[in-house]
Amino acid sequence: MSDPWQECMDYCIEVTKRAGKMICEALQKDIAVMHKSSAVDLVTETDQKVEQLIISSIREKYPTHSFIGEESVAAGAPSTLSDNPTWIIDPIDGTTNFVHRFPFVSVSIGFTVKKEIEFGIVYSCIEDKMYTARKGKGAFCNGVPIKVSGQEDISKSLVLTEMGFKKDAEQFQTMMANIRNILSIPVHGIRSPGSAAVNMCLVACGSADAYYHMGIHCWDMAGGAAVVREAGGVIMDISGGPFDLMSRRLIVASSRMIAERIAKEITEFHVGRDDTDD
Amino acid sequence: MSDPWQECMDYCIEVTKRAGKMICEALQKDIAVMHKSSAVDLVTETDQKVEQLIISSIREKYPTHSFIGEESVAAGAPSTLSDNPTWIIDPIDGTTNFVHRFPFVSVSIGFTVKKEIEFGIVYSCIEDKMYTARKGKGAFCNGVPIKVSGQEDISKSLVLTEMGFKKDAEQFQTMMANIRNILSIPVHGIRSPGSAAVNMCLVACGSADAYYHMGIHCWDMAGGAAVVREAGGVIMDISGGPFDLMSRRLIVASSRMIAERIAKEITEFHVGRDDTDD
Repeated sequence: MSDPWQECMDYCIEVTKRAGKMICEALQKDIAVMHKSSAVDLVTETDQKVEQLIISSIREKYPTHSFIGEESVAAGAPSTLSDNPTWIIDPIDGTTNFVHRFPFVSVSIGFTVKKEIEFGIVYSCIEDKMYTARKGKGAFCNGVPIKVSGQEDISKSLVLTEMGFKKDAEQFQTMMANIRNILSIPVHGIRSPGSAAVNMCLVACGSADAYYHMGIHCWDMAGGAAVVREAGGVIMDISGGPFDLMSRRLIVASSRMIAERIAKEITEFHVGRDDTDD
Repeated sequence: MSDPWQECMDYCIEVTKRAGKMICEALQKDIAVMHKSSAVDLVTETDQKVEQLIISSIREKYPTHSFIGEESVAAGAPSTLSDNPTWIIDPIDGTTNFVHRFPFVSVSIGFTVKKEIEFGIVYSCIEDKMYTARKGKGAFCNGVPIKVSGQEDISKSLVLTEMGFKKDAEQFQTMMANIRNILSIPVHGIRSPGSAAVNMCLVACGSADAYYHMGIHCWDMAGGAAVVREAGGVIMDISGGPFDLMSRRLIVASSRMIAERIAKEITEFHVGRDDTDD
């Protein structure tokens, strides 16, 4: 039997390339604008334009499919995962990087059927790296197979996470304490590239050994989750339990041993879910 | 009068390209080795080979010049800056990144005469970005002029720093408290790319607005210092005082306002100097 979703995946790669081109063009022409007016407006505008391009292109071809897009959700659309074929889209992953032209900015698309991820595409457009993964068929970067480092020794690992100011003092405290705990193991180092989808792909291709994040969204994770799994990586919840796409919590790693050690070292804080108003 | 050091700079670019090629080749062929034996040995070996290539190439052409190289100093050579024309060399800046193939790895060379930096070259070899700067003649990336963002509002800035475990509990505490203070301003974000020379170049080309570091060495700074200055950036000591190449302390920023605000937010800890046994 032929693969029913391969055609969707091929089309997705094509649309993602176009979306990446649109982002790179925005980065070229808007240097003047960025310094004058609000960079936040620019990123919102580009974010919306790119998401519209992606959704309208896909809807035209697959009118019965569902969509969860960062910008659509921001505009009030629901983000509940159904059994219907669903495209989960982050038009610009790494919006702060986009504003600053920091070189990790990506388009991330994951595709689920019956709530299972069938394929994922992450295009790191400034680097021009197209990560692709179809369930059961391996992960690739620009067509070349990739795999995780396989590292099992946490003390030899490079760990990715993101850090930002949090108004909730306790959450901020916990986030900083988690970084301190990981550094104190000690590990080789911590890096913060600033794009969740790229972070997952860096683990997938062996350039980093782990990535953890609380407060991430399903559209940040769906594309990269396929890539990291197909590259032989481990993906789990912050608690060490099974990964839940709508939970806003994530650990990915080169091995179960490293993922579980990170789960043990970090303290959870409440981040709510993507599919409830919690 | 013709520029007496332009010929040195042109030659430096040529040698740096060759050094970068050697690093990229090591990254290609040694994947198998890295997982089997000690990655630390591999990086040390490549570090030494690249430094030997650079120093022997330059010494052949300029036998009376002096050298300060990371690996030579590690092997016992002095790191005292004299008035003699001096090449200050980091053969692989970002050695942890090199071990992990994390994409920021650079060759950094600064050239001083009478203790003043005349030119600087930083080659981010995985990215294939050659940053060059001759005193008074501007900064370039792959031949295209670059300049800092010009950002003066710290709350809109992207800040770079590095974080690692420190055995000295008080230093570790201070390092973490500094990160917390910067995040709490708040800023747009903190990124940790893992190569000091690349960090300086990211500020120089406007992809980040500031970078601070205590415990950095002169060979990490000499090349990037020229690039960031010629790109219109500000460079100063952690205290807010004048920059001192041998002090192991650095703030670079897109504007004096941002550099001074960072100096105000962070607490110093003792790191010694490169030119004393302190």
